[in-house]
Amino acid sequence: MTEYGIEVRVTPRRGILDPQGKAVGGALSSLGFDGVGEVHVGRLIVFGLAAESEADARERADAMCRQLLANPVTEDYQVAVRAPAGSAA
Amino acid sequence: MTEYGIEVRVTPRRGILDPQGKAVGGALSSLGFDGVGEVHVGRLIVFGLAAESEADARERADAMCRQLLANPVTEDYQVAVRAPAGSAA
Repeated sequence: MTEYGIEVRVTPRRGILDPQGKAVGGALSSLGFDGVGEVHVGRLIVFGLAAESEADARERADAMCRQLLANPVTEDYQVAVRAPAGSAA
Repeated sequence: MTEYGIEVRVTPRRGILDPQGKAVGGALSSLGFDGVGEVHVGRLIVFGLAAESEADARERADAMCRQLLANPVTEDYQVAVRAPAGSAA
């Protein structure tokens, strides 16, 4: 078993309303920041995962996204798997 | 002026309580996912920013983080700047 570093990026699907992004965009503009385009706010979920292989880690992280971490109707997700430095996996 | 792609990652500072991460970790465990280490949940803020240069874009995005996007007491942030494909900047 190797401890892999998992990073999941969950972002609102394009074309779906993103009220949080709109609020951040409006606040930036109120603060005087110019030239800011459309803002999207998503979540970043980072954890360690003990797994037999990188493929196994990715598959399980993907299952976690489908079951809990992302809303498949309104959100897209990407899983990045990082092997620990110096591991033989 | 070039439109740069800005991606800000805001994560809870290590050692600071992360109740959202704890809740996600507990939920994953309840769903039967084993081998999950400590979970940290952060925010991902993505937007386009019109700027004179990459350095200018980074500096302004950094100012946005200090003033609005991140809580400097409890959170760390990282700014990534992506130049548009085929730009001359």
